[in-house]
Amino acid sequence: MNTNTVKAYGTESKEADLKEINIERREVLANDIEIDILFCGVCHSDLHTARNDWGGTKYPSVPGHEIVGKITKIGSEVSKFKVGDLAAVGCMVDSCRECENCKRDLEQYCTNGMVGTYNGNDKNLGGHTFGGYSEKVVVDENYVLRVPENLDLAAVAPLLCAGITTYSPLKHWNVNENSKVAVVGLGGLGHMAIKLAKGLGAHVSLFSRSPEKTQDALDLGADQVIISTNEEEMKAVQGKFDLIIDTVPYEHELNEYVNTLDIDGTIVLQGFIGELNKMISTVPIVLGRRSISGSLIGGIAETQEMLDFCGEKNIVSDIEMINMENINEAYERMLKSDVKYRFVIDMKSLKN
Amino acid sequence: MNTNTVKAYGTESKEADLKEINIERREVLANDIEIDILFCGVCHSDLHTARNDWGGTKYPSVPGHEIVGKITKIGSEVSKFKVGDLAAVGCMVDSCRECENCKRDLEQYCTNGMVGTYNGNDKNLGGHTFGGYSEKVVVDENYVLRVPENLDLAAVAPLLCAGITTYSPLKHWNVNENSKVAVVGLGGLGHMAIKLAKGLGAHVSLFSRSPEKTQDALDLGADQVIISTNEEEMKAVQGKFDLIIDTVPYEHELNEYVNTLDIDGTIVLQGFIGELNKMISTVPIVLGRRSISGSLIGGIAETQEMLDFCGEKNIVSDIEMINMENINEAYERMLKSDVKYRFVIDMKSLKN
Ligand SMILES: [Zn+2]
Ligand SMILES: [Zn+2]
Ligand SMILES: [Zn+2]
Ligand SMILES: [Zn+2]
Repeated sequence: MNTNTVKAYGTESKEADLKEINIERREVLANDIEIDILFCGVCHSDLHTARNDWGGTKYPSVPGHEIVGKITKIGSEVSKFKVGDLAAVGCMVDSCRECENCKRDLEQYCTNGMVGTYNGNDKNLGGHTFGGYSEKVVVDENYVLRVPENLDLAAVAPLLCAGITTYSPLKHWNVNENSKVAVVGLGGLGHMAIKLAKGLGAHVSLFSRSPEKTQDALDLGADQVIISTNEEEMKAVQGKFDLIIDTVPYEHELNEYVNTLDIDGTIVLQGFIGELNKMISTVPIVLGRRSISGSLIGGIAETQEMLDFCGEKNIVSDIEMINMENINEAYERMLKSDVKYRFVIDMKSLKN
Repeated sequence: MNTNTVKAYGTESKEADLKEINIERREVLANDIEIDILFCGVCHSDLHTARNDWGGTKYPSVPGHEIVGKITKIGSEVSKFKVGDLAAVGCMVDSCRECENCKRDLEQYCTNGMVGTYNGNDKNLGGHTFGGYSEKVVVDENYVLRVPENLDLAAVAPLLCAGITTYSPLKHWNVNENSKVAVVGLGGLGHMAIKLAKGLGAHVSLFSRSPEKTQDALDLGADQVIISTNEEEMKAVQGKFDLIIDTVPYEHELNEYVNTLDIDGTIVLQGFIGELNKMISTVPIVLGRRSISGSLIGGIAETQEMLDFCGEKNIVSDIEMINMENINEAYERMLKSDVKYRFVIDMKSLKN
């Protein structure tokens, strides 16, 4: 298979910093699109994969799955895009397309395993896939998204992971003007959850441990901030929420939040992948038909729906732009939650 | 308020056996119905309340909330029943009737607290309510159910708690001919869950630790029994079920069952009220949008729907009839799960 060498930023081992490397991208096949990457958001998964925190990382590892850019080449059979169009790629670049979940536009739950944008199995070149910290990417058109023209392109990038991850459960659990939604954690996911729930017309609250986040949350559109360490404030919201989007990325106590759910309410776990050792009481679950659930990104069709919705409502991420060479420093700041609310790499900095 | 003294079976303290005592029942008020109790099912909650296992038991305690009988008197405003009709009473005899949940026929989740058939706050006489281990009971007609004439009356009694408790989640989570349902635990609740899920047309499996229950489950209508200690059998059902009804009444590991849920599947906890100390992994929850939920009995309208459904499908409980004086012995056998599948008291034995 013909390939083209492109510049990328990646790491050779879990201890090593990311640095410039060369990778191969396939020449476009009939259904492929080649995208010149303009911006790439920086997700916590990037960092966890680069450092093999979850195991299973294949090296060299080139992270990045919040990709926006311009189309530079299309295959002979491509029908939905043309050269010069804006385009975006999120967390996956392929899936089996045949299982029940793929057929139902739930490619993220593909029974045979979706192909991650990075660290996935590359069906064409063998080996593993390389992400958006690179000059170009080649993706089958069925896994490429259209980008609304009216939005700030850099600030669109985080919609491809943080946006769809929070949009999908809001839609799945039918959030609308009558809904009371709460968000736990104010980071990349949390700030998008506030904006999107607000965009859907819901009453939106943020649970926070630190009062100093109150103004930020209100500025993002939250109607209310509940300091979760304040007993009075927690008492005042018992049984209140229809849906809680829990973005906290480490093990934490769930009961205090479950108790703030209304009858038939659901808390959706998004940030933490692992064992919940803390006690979960079945009392509020059984006595109120409340649910603890989870959700993983979203399907391709739903990602497009989310982008179109953001175009219509003028919703983008709050970002801090960085150059490619500052990625290692950005990772350190992310670990300290020192970013409002998402780093986005200006890929011009890699090309020079 | 005028009252009538009736014979009952109750206990004066958590250590004491149940024995014959006298209690007062109010004379029927305008909307009340007086029922001559013919049969009363024996629920695990009866035992736990009598022995104060959950705290909060008021003595003397007269358990019993699976009540069927014949109407002997009606108040001046009663419109739905007449003297001589069959009638049934389940887990509640009143609720606030004004909260959002009561208005939505979800009296079991009454925000102001439903009035339990026993150990509830008696709004009319003060003190606490007395259950069905008694000759008669007086209940507002809005909390009285009609009983299908074609069913064995003694075997109907357990439908009022075990039946509605398992029917409600089956309906709430839309179980139908296309559903794959599994049941954990083969006791009073579990055997009803199998029969009702089967009645709704679902494919029904039982999870069991003991192979000797296989034939019993198949006889009850299960399509399949999965021995949960057998790794091969568990592996074969990964990702299979839409709904799991978990009736296990003690703390237990959930992950092994969560992993057998399909995408968007839900495990509904019904038997265990307390802390789940065992680790719950968020992996299958997040990666498959699976839910851990719970459910408590059912509303009055839904209880009537369930009874009508059972009449139509000829579904009743499998019971072992006992006399009132054998209740203490029956409790001991229940603790050893030595009953197929529900004790029902022939109330004639109290009246003689
Ligand atoms: Zn991500
Ligand atoms: Zn698939
Ligand atoms: Zn019961
Ligand atoms: Zn109420």
